[in-house]
Amino acid sequence: MKEQLKNMIIASTSTIHGSSYLEYILPTLKAFFENTDEVVFIPYARPGGISHDDYTEIAKKGFERIGKQVVGVHTFENPVEALKNAKAVFTGGGNTFLLVSQLYKFEIMPVLRQRIFEGLHYFGTSAGANITGLTMQTTNDMPIIYPPSFKTLGAVPFNINPHYLDPVSGSKHMGETRETRINEFHKINTQPVIGLREGSWLEVRGDRILLQGEHTARIFEQNKPAYEIESGSEVRF
Amino acid sequence: MKEQLKNMIIASTSTIHGSSYLEYILPTLKAFFENTDEVVFIPYARPGGISHDDYTEIAKKGFERIGKQVVGVHTFENPVEALKNAKAVFTGGGNTFLLVSQLYKFEIMPVLRQRIFEGLHYFGTSAGANITGLTMQTTNDMPIIYPPSFKTLGAVPFNINPHYLDPVSGSKHMGETRETRINEFHKINTQPVIGLREGSWLEVRGDRILLQGEHTARIFEQNKPAYEIESGSEVRF
Repeated sequence: MKEQLKNMIIASTSTIHGSSYLEYILPTLKAFFENTDEVVFIPYARPGGISHDDYTEIAKKGFERIGKQVVGVHTFENPVEALKNAKAVFTGGGNTFLLVSQLYKFEIMPVLRQRIFEGLHYFGTSAGANITGLTMQTTNDMPIIYPPSFKTLGAVPFNINPHYLDPVSGSKHMGETRETRINEFHKINTQPVIGLREGSWLEVRGDRILLQGEHTARIFEQNKPAYEIESGSEVRF
Repeated sequence: MKEQLKNMIIASTSTIHGSSYLEYILPTLKAFFENTDEVVFIPYARPGGISHDDYTEIAKKGFERIGKQVVGVHTFENPVEALKNAKAVFTGGGNTFLLVSQLYKFEIMPVLRQRIFEGLHYFGTSAGANITGLTMQTTNDMPIIYPPSFKTLGAVPFNINPHYLDPVSGSKHMGETRETRINEFHKINTQPVIGLREGSWLEVRGDRILLQGEHTARIFEQNKPAYEIESGSEVRF
């Protein structure tokens, strides 16, 4: 598999506060998808439990604004074949446990991985970003369904924490902060984790991974203090 | 198994903001554990990844204030035998995935369940509260380890969401609220969920379950709008 063929946009969120669905990232998507008219949408994460059809409608409306067709992978008789033939894929956010369960159930995980390594244009937000990492174990979601494995696409050599949230100053809530949770992860797992704030994304071209968007990102490596990297810098371990 | 023998305190958190470990609930624990000198502590959830020994020290210091000995279950050669002989058990919070994985690994889950149904005095906070429900699927924790199952003790006929958090007004964060996550849970699961705010606990005496502490609790039933119940009221579905 030729590493240098990867083309991905891995985004923390679909929507930033005060703007419409995908709005902040449409110029990036327009350039990214310039050589394709149709994007296959994976709606399995079902945010808020909405149906695959309803979710696909939302994605359609977003992509209409850059003149792209969207077709839900659930509308194909054979989703594996659909992905084998797709030029471009978008996986939307929602519940990562549900998304991963469905990707295994429909045997999509290996074919999607292979297509990404062959150069398929892949865009994922939130749960759809999370699954590009080595495992889904730095998701923020509730385990509403038991997936056959926590292993995900491994299209980047680290884990992703989407919607990364800094500790809320003055909070009286005693639940763990995001940083505490990721540190707990590193007590028993070795791979680095990138905390992507809302409005940040990773642009993957071959083996080059750049942080984009207006924020810094927080990097967690096992047995090191967490640190920030600037937008525009390369993610490399 | 005789339902009427159950004796449990199921608490949202060990610590409330601005007070020391267990402080808010010590008077309750003093009465609850009046007939035992020794409490077996289950430290497997390892909050922040601390060691079993360090965690047990924290629990010891908390219980010293009501004159009880604490002994870590990990110090016994045979934890299953230790739990068979225990008069009282306390399971502390931390990571629920880790806790549940260890309970299965050491084959503790069935014996702990049996002892609870036989009248063992059980106290659990946070992750230690979560495992008293039907499944751990309404935890807030990160899936840092893959447990063999999400099924838990089923000592109460519903699921628990500890550290229940109301939506933060004015937040610009686009991640799902706690309520949204629990609603997603109910798209594919049927059991009720009780959102226990920090400072709330359930007092279980036989088949009677009372909400205690200063807050209301939020109840989520499938296909119903969420609602609040008052402190002092019975939890019954």
